[in-house]
Formats: sequence, C-alpha cells, structure tokens
Amino acid sequence: MKLEGVEIEDTFAEAFPIKVARVLITAVNEKWAMETAREATGFGTSVIGCPAEAGIDRVLTGDETPDGRPGVAIMICHFKKDGIKEQLLGRLGQCVFTAPTTAMFNGLDAEEKLPIKLHFFGDGFEYEKEVGGRKVWGIPMMEGDFICEEEYGVKPGVAGGNFFILAKDQMSALIAAENSVAAVRQVEGTITPFTGGIVASGSKVGSKYKFMHASTNEKFCPTLRDKVEGSQIPEGVNGVYEIVINGVSEEAVKKAMRIGIKAAVKVPDIVKISAGNFEGKLGKYQFQLRDVLGL
Amino acid sequence: MKLEGVEIEDTFAEAFPIKVARVLITAVNEKWAMETAREATGFGTSVIGCPAEAGIDRVLTGDETPDGRPGVAIMICHFKKDGIKEQLLGRLGQCVFTAPTTAMFNGLDAEEKLPIKLHFFGDGFEYEKEVGGRKVWGIPMMEGDFICEEEYGVKPGVAGGNFFILAKDQMSALIAAENSVAAVRQVEGTITPFTGGIVASGSKVGSKYKFMHASTNEKFCPTLRDKVEGSQIPEGVNGVYEIVINGVSEEAVKKAMRIGIKAAVKVPDIVKISAGNFEGKLGKYQFQLRDVLGL
Amino acid sequence: MKLEGVEIEDTFAEAFPIKVARVLITAVNEKWAMETAREATGFGTSVIGCPAEAGIDRVLTGDETPDGRPGVAIMICHFKKDGIKEQLLGRLGQCVFTAPTTAMFNGLDAEEKLPIKLHFFGDGFEYEKEVGGRKVWGIPMMEGDFICEEEYGVKPGVAGGNFFILAKDQMSALIAAENSVAAVRQVEGTITPFTGGIVASGSKVGSKYKFMHASTNEKFCPTLRDKVEGSQIPEGVNGVYEIVINGVSEEAVKKAMRIGIKAAVKVPDIVKISAGNFEGKLGKYQFQLRDVLGL
Amino acid sequence: MKLEGVEIEDTFAEAFPIKVARVLITAVNEKWAMETAREATGFGTSVIGCPAEAGIDRVLTGDETPDGRPGVAIMICHFKKDGIKEQLLGRLGQCVFTAPTTAMFNGLDAEEKLPIKLHFFGDGFEYEKEVGGRKVWGIPMMEGDFICEEEYGVKPGVAGGNFFILAKDQMSALIAAENSVAAVRQVEGTITPFTGGIVASGSKVGSKYKFMHASTNEKFCPTLRDKVEGSQIPEGVNGVYEIVINGVSEEAVKKAMRIGIKAAVKVPDIVKISAGNFEGKLGKYQFQLRDVLGL
Repeated sequence: MKLEGVEIEDTFAEAFPIKVARVLITAVNEKWAMETAREATGFGTSVIGCPAEAGIDRVLTGDETPDGRPGVAIMICHFKKDGIKEQLLGRLGQCVFTAPTTAMFNGLDAEEKLPIKLHFFGDGFEYEKEVGGRKVWGIPMMEGDFICEEEYGVKPGVAGGNFFILAKDQMSALIAAENSVAAVRQVEGTITPFTGGIVASGSKVGSKYKFMHASTNEKFCPTLRDKVEGSQIPEGVNGVYEIVINGVSEEAVKKAMRIGIKAAVKVPDIVKISAGNFEGKLGKYQFQLRDVLGL
Repeated sequence: MKLEGVEIEDTFAEAFPIKVARVLITAVNEKWAMETAREATGFGTSVIGCPAEAGIDRVLTGDETPDGRPGVAIMICHFKKDGIKEQLLGRLGQCVFTAPTTAMFNGLDAEEKLPIKLHFFGDGFEYEKEVGGRKVWGIPMMEGDFICEEEYGVKPGVAGGNFFILAKDQMSALIAAENSVAAVRQVEGTITPFTGGIVASGSKVGSKYKFMHASTNEKFCPTLRDKVEGSQIPEGVNGVYEIVINGVSEEAVKKAMRIGIKAAVKVPDIVKISAGNFEGKLGKYQFQLRDVLGL
Repeated sequence: MKLEGVEIEDTFAEAFPIKVARVLITAVNEKWAMETAREATGFGTSVIGCPAEAGIDRVLTGDETPDGRPGVAIMICHFKKDGIKEQLLGRLGQCVFTAPTTAMFNGLDAEEKLPIKLHFFGDGFEYEKEVGGRKVWGIPMMEGDFICEEEYGVKPGVAGGNFFILAKDQMSALIAAENSVAAVRQVEGTITPFTGGIVASGSKVGSKYKFMHASTNEKFCPTLRDKVEGSQIPEGVNGVYEIVINGVSEEAVKKAMRIGIKAAVKVPDIVKISAGNFEGKLGKYQFQLRDVLGL
Repeated sequence: MKLEGVEIEDTFAEAFPIKVARVLITAVNEKWAMETAREATGFGTSVIGCPAEAGIDRVLTGDETPDGRPGVAIMICHFKKDGIKEQLLGRLGQCVFTAPTTAMFNGLDAEEKLPIKLHFFGDGFEYEKEVGGRKVWGIPMMEGDFICEEEYGVKPGVAGGNFFILAKDQMSALIAAENSVAAVRQVEGTITPFTGGIVASGSKVGSKYKFMHASTNEKFCPTLRDKVEGSQIPEGVNGVYEIVINGVSEEAVKKAMRIGIKAAVKVPDIVKISAGNFEGKLGKYQFQLRDVLGL
C-alpha cells in the first residue's frame, strides 16, 4: 500500500484499555493555559515509569470554554481508578490550583465522576457560584479567586495507539514526527503522552540481563542493522520514530492515527509507515493501517 | 526601603535544606532540549503534593555542553537521597532516554554521586565512549544511539527562597512575575519550580476543617481584604504573586532573588516587594531583602 | 451599553476602501510558514509610512492548503492596484521565494488577478505542473524546487476597522489587547497590521509644528489627562490601546471586531471599549459598536 | 579540510561595504521587544528587492539596556546614507513608535549620527529627560509616554558574509541552517537578514530571458544535478542552504561565520560546508573558510 508515494506496511497497532480523565484548564490567555497544562501533564510519558500517562489534548478558543476564556484540554490516564483519582488530586492541586489566572472544569461527559475536593483549602471562605451553566467553587487566594468544578468524569479509554515513521535519515524522521504530533493536537479526545509526542526508543520483552524486564529492540536499531540477524530496518532507512496515541475512544485514536500519518508522509525522504503490535496476543484493540487510512 | 520607586519591605525569606541533582540535557536543537527538559521536570512544583521539586535552570549554548550541542540544564530536588535517586531514574529514564535526539550528562560538581544505570537497557549492545572528556554510554535505539553519563552528582541545596510581588492589579503583578522568572532563568544553579515559575496561592498552617493541614491564608487574599481582620494586603493592592526559588547554594538563591526583584520593579503599577517567612522558626536559611538588594 | 460588565461606548469605527491581495504560504511545517509570513508582512503597519499594510490572516492546517502542508494566509493591502502589484512582487519575490521549504498560492477568489512572474527566474528550467487542482510553476533552486501560482487575486477591501481598549492600567490594557489580536487571528479574511496587532499611539490631524501633518492626540493621553482641556480619558483609566483591523469585506471586519472585543472584556480591570471615527466625514464604512456586538 | 568529520571547502566568502545603523528596542518584556524588532526589520532580506537589509542582532537582558528593561538590538543596512535615514524614519516611526510599551535608543558607537526627529509628533507636549545617562525625549501617547533618543549612529559595515550547508537531504540541511542562525543570533553586531536567516535559492548573473538580470544558478540545484553540465552539487547531496551575514565589522562577520559553521556541522548528515564568491572580482572583503575556522 502507498500513501503519497510512501509505503504503508499492511500491519496493525495493538492497544490497551486504560482509564481516562479530561480536564479543561482556562486562563487569562492561551500562554498561561498552556504553561499550566504542560506542568500538570509533565512526567507522564508511560505508566511503566511515570505516575500517569498525561498530555495535552487540544487548544480551546474562548467559544469552547465554560468561562469564555482561552483554554487547553488535558488528559490524564491510569490503569486504575484509584490511580486516576490520586493523579488528579496531585496534578490539579499542585500544578493548576497554584498557577496564575487559571480555572479548571470537567472536560469529559462520563457516567462515573471523581470528586476532587480542593475547595476545602478555602478554609470556609470558599463559596459556590455558577459559571457557564456549571456549579463551581470560588476559592479566595493571593492573586484573586480560583474557580473550579468539583467533579471530574472518568471513563474507559484506549492506550497505546501508535505508528512508526521510517526515514532515509534521522532529521527527516524528526520533522515528520513533529508534524504528526502537531496534527494529532487538532484531534479532540487524544494525546501523544511521550516527550514532545515522540518516542525515540523501541523495546522488546526480556533481556540478557536477568534483572531487566525489557530492553532495546535491536532489530529496530538502524545502527545495528548490519550487526544483528533479522533486522527489521529496511535498506536506506537511518532514523525511526514512533508516535504513541492515547484516546477517549477507539474512534478518536483511529482519527488521530489517520491525521498523524497523513501529516508525516508530506515530509521529504520518508520511506515507510508501520505500526507496533504483539501479534494480537496482548491488547484488546487493533488498528489496521489499511482500515485507518481507507486504503 | 525603595527600589526604583517601589517599596521593599524590611523582611526576609526563610528557606530550607534540600538535596539537589542537576542534569545537562542536550539535543539536536534548543527546541528539543527544552521540550525534554519540560517533560522531565513537569509535575514538580512542591514536594507537598508532587514526587519532586524540579525545574529548568538555564539554556546552554553549544560552547557550554559536553557534546557541543544546544542544551538545557535542569535541577531535581527532594528532601531525601533515596527520593532523588528514584526521581532521577524515573524522570531521566522515562522522559529523556525516550526523547528524540537527546543526550544527558551530569551537571553538578559534587562529592556524592548517584549511579543511574540506564545503559543495561542496551541488552549487551551498549558500549562505552568518550564525549567532551567524559566517559559515557552509547545505547543503540530506534532513532540512532543514545548517549548518557552514568553518575549524577547530588549535593545539599536550598529550597524555598522567595519574594512576593504586590501590584495595583492582577495583570501588572502577572507581567512583573513573568519578568522575574525570565530573569532568574539566567542565574546558574537556580530554578523556579512552580507552574511557569509563579505561585498564585498563599497558605497558612491549619484550617477550620480538621482534616486539612494547610489552608488559604485569608490575610493575603485581596478579595477578602475588607472581610477579614488583620489583612496584610495594603490599600490599593489587588494582585499578589510569589516567586519561589530553589538553588544549589545560598549564593545562587540570593543572586536569583536580587535579579528577579530588579526585573519585577521595572513593570508599571508594582506597589511593593515582600518575602515569606515563619518568623525564623522553621527554616535554616534567611535571606534579608535589605541584604539581597544591598539597600 | 455593557458587555460582561464593561461599558461599551455607543459610537462607531470609521473605515476606508483599500485594495487587498491574499496569499497562502505553505511550508514543511507551521514554523516555516509563519516565519515566512512574518518576513513578508513586516514593515507593513500603515501606508502612511510603510510601503503597504500587511499582516497574518490565519494559520492553515494541511486540510486547508492546496499542497496539503501546513500554511499561513497573509494579506497585503494598498490604496492603489499598482502599489499592490509592486508590493506582491517585492514581498513574495524577496521574502517567500527565497525562504526554506515554502510554496505559495493565491488565497483570494477575485475577478481581478495580478500576474507575478517569478518563474522566469528559472532560466528555462522552470516547468508547469498541477498541485491541488491548480496550475503551478516548479522552479529548481538550491534547496530543491520552489512551487508557486502565477496569478493572485486582488479585490476591494476595508481598511481601518478599529476599537479602543481603555483599562485601569497599562498592563491590563496590554493583555486585553493581546487577547483581542489572538482572537482576530482566528477570523478568516482579516489582519491586524500594526506591530503585534496593537496601536499604542493616537493621532489628530495637524500640529503646532507647521511641517507636521499629524500629531499626538493629547485628549487621548492618560499622562496629559489633568494637563489639557477636554481630555477624553475617563477617570481611573491609565492605559489605552487600539486594535486596527483590515479585511476582505465589511462582514469580515465586523466579525473580527465582535470577536476581538469579546476577548478583551474577559480580562480584569478593563473599563471601557470605544471606537475611532472622523464623525463620518472621511470614511466610506461605519461599524457601530451597538450593531457589531448585537447590543 | 575537515571539521567534526564534515568537509570544509578551501574557498572564501566575498562581501561588500554597506552602511549600518543599530537600534536598541526595549519593552516591558522580551516578547514585545522581539515582536517590535520583527515588524521593524521585516521586508528586509536584500536591497535587490527590499527597501533595506534588516534583521535582529541580539536579545538583551535588563543589564544591557539603557532603561534596564528587556530588549532586542536590530540592525538596518543600506548602501546609501540617505537610504539608511529614510529607512530609520519609516521603520522606527511606523513600527516601533506605535508599538506597545516600547522605547528606543541608539545602539552604535559611531562618529556619524543621523537625527530621527519623531518627537515633533508630541505637538509641544514632548519633553526631555535622562534615561541611563542618555538624553531622551518623552512623548505622551495613548498608552503612556514613549521614550526615544534622537540621534542614531551609522557607520560602514559589511554585507554578504556567507557560507553554504550541503547535506544528504533537505531536512538535515534545514535543521543545520536553523542551528547556524540561532548561533549567529548570539554574536553581537551581526544579522542574518533573509527569512528566518536562511536562503533557499542561489542565483547567477544573467539569464536566457533578456529582461532578467539574474536567474537560478542551475549548477547549484540538486534536482538538476544529472540534467546540466558542470553541476557543483556533489554526489549524495540533496539539499543546500546559504546563510548570509551582515555585520558592523569584518571581525563580527568572521566570528559569526565561525560560530554558525560550528553549529551546523553538529547536525547529522551534513556533507560539506562551502562559501560563495565572485572570484574576488566584485567584493571588497574576503573571508577564507580556512582562516575563519582556524584550520
């Protein structure tokens, strides 16, 4: 299969169930909504070594937020509901509540809701009011009053949607991956949780070192192409990046994969697009590139 | 006391000992060094509710890095050595190791060093080489080879250096606080760990709610000025922000406070600069504004 | 009249006919489309002292551009058709044609078209092809081949749509003005040609110096409020900015004014919104704030 | 010759005399100093088709500016003194004078000074004061008072310092060129006047079309490599960019070339660095790469 002259491997991305919360952060301007979103979602690339998988969903105009101010929607993901609650409390309480000019609102229409009771910080000076048809708390603080909703929806989502960008060289792969991430940023209900949205390392289960559960996947290392047997790096490929996508639904992840891949293949010297899976043995969800791209 | 026409309160900032590590992240360009530094230091405003206090120290030119590439120095702080090690392993392993084009090096000349053994991920394909006179590991991965040092210095530092910016209105306070943070970004060995470097809320110990250990300090809330007794908000002040500074040494924190305050008072409608303390009862370090500013 | 608690003066903006061209600049990523758009529209605040009035209309996703790459739409305005042609030739030829990875396309559906014959630079190596259903030239150059359309639509537009933001202090006025400009950036077919979209100075016709045709309007200077007779600066106002808007049509300017004002009044300490006119004596177009805002 | 494994061609850049002015723009924050610097230096890539060659020299901290605020130094170049004066009047008067929170000061220690009499705009309300030991004008306007010096130094400088980056592919060349421009941004007294600092097209004198004075240099077009005789594009090179540097002195240009080239060769897949000249027939200045790099 080909898309804009770039080979699309006939394979699939394998993904997993995860719990997702989504929060709308608003501020006096987009700069502070974004700054706050970044702090609140930092140290959140993978639950393997981070306390959550978190990232920026989408920038919101004043027309799209409860208080009519510029905003940024973020998503926080964890395998367990308790984990989500703990992460919301920590990340919202420490990184949004303390941040200049911000307010926060639930960003997910979900049956299940988690109470995040930051208003008790108000020490009795907190008060209830309505903003954009929502019941919120006002909490007096040093800069003025902080506004927040109390309950945040949580629902089952999808973790680990993905695709790989293989290029003639590392810099072409990098710019293509950057463009994919920028394009996915437009797709509501999805995040690319890794640093800047891009994964530079690939892993396999197990290692020659007994104390390691995972290790570099030597078959996907361009610099080992001629040194290991069975390398999966095609001739002429010298740089590979992966885009990992979490979403609120299969549809959202599928749309993000399509838009991300379409952005990548526009960059010169992209050789191939592939996807990562465990032969269907581990994940609940499968995203066939053929299907994702309508090829 | 006055500085550029702005009243400087004759008081002091009270600060605490903390353990500090400092890491140099380099990348193919400043964009990716900064992107990685932000992810690695996110969710790191205060150890009260975050796993660490972390932030960006300084942008580095190619002349200042071991591999001659653009870089960003970050600092990670924790009250315990074990905590620092765990945080380095998690934040460097998950947010830097996986990030495109990055390398990482120790950024602190310290007697005590913590081993961060990411190279075992190489599964036997890792190798040693020298970069900028330092022994480093090369670890083959998808994008190419990741380069990192193994040992990272840790030493006693200072947490909680601070000053307050009181302004006629919130927006003037905000721009002054932004300028303070930008100025402190130039001072080697210091970070402003809160979101965007700015703290919008002030707290006191205790609460009328028995389950809360801390609560809003109503005496520092402009919107409660006329509703509580003993408000510390001067007449005509409607917005207050705090800049919190952690540093590798008292000297670094002192310099950062001076440069940060000098940047703030240049903004119109700043009424007063103050600092936060516990009357000398809790912290090991005291930074008198009189002394910091040479007044 | 009031909008979100801010007084709206019952007055109107007076605007003028101007010729408008609109060009779509695409590039390998948004960064380079924007960088190029900025160079091509620089030195273009007002035809009183600049060779054109020019600015950035809107950021375009790959779905919105002829070649499927990220883009930025710019507008170039001049009172005369000859002036527009000269400016297109100079600005496109010197600032877009030479810029990395860019392509350019007509961005205006207009009866009248101006030929911009940059392809002769190809010295016979230029060739015709089709991109996104449009006939374009390919011109070999150092980086690869430059792609551009030959004809650019020009049509009558509107110059000088405007509103004023009056605030308690300068910094609140500044942030409100920034937010207005960011909001107008979303409105297709409009630009805010001044530096960063904001005008800091107001003028009147004539001067006590005979060689000056225009001079500062002392009745709109906060620092002269108590020194001149008939000051138009209300009590408590200490900072005023004007947003000037050019557009492809009256409808576009009207929409931009509405969205810009709505963004401004969300910022704290905004006292009043007004608009500038010449009592209807000079301009062809009038935009009543009452009508613009539906009040 | 080689630098970091990259071939350095043993050739030279040929450059020309030009008149240079240098202006310090300060503002309430770096954002507005930079925004203003960009507008004031836009449409200024080459005097062949722009009214001036202009660009951003360096970002300035509060310690480096007359008024202690953040700043940006810009340079404006023209072959004639009259041209410089006209350009200063237009660019400073229309793009800086009208911009929010800005002030401007002479940035060049030169014997010859050009008077730029913007203060008459004050209509008699203008006043003299001292800022940072300089005599300046204060001019009341809508946002408050604009501060500017009256006289701006002009002196002979150098135009057209340059080097070429040849890479395996276009994206590697682009990132290397971006890094060169970022590095040159640190060198006081130099600008890279083209869009984003990078030139994507190369020209030769003359054309097969009689009405064209210059045309694409087909010997430097990668896509024509196998179609023309005597191509100068080495095998394996698919993307070439040029960095053009203007400076206040030969020393400044030489330093900028060295630092720019050192930044470029750090990027993967750079094949060769060269420079452009007219065999010494046209320009007054020669910069031998051997000498520039100390090889």
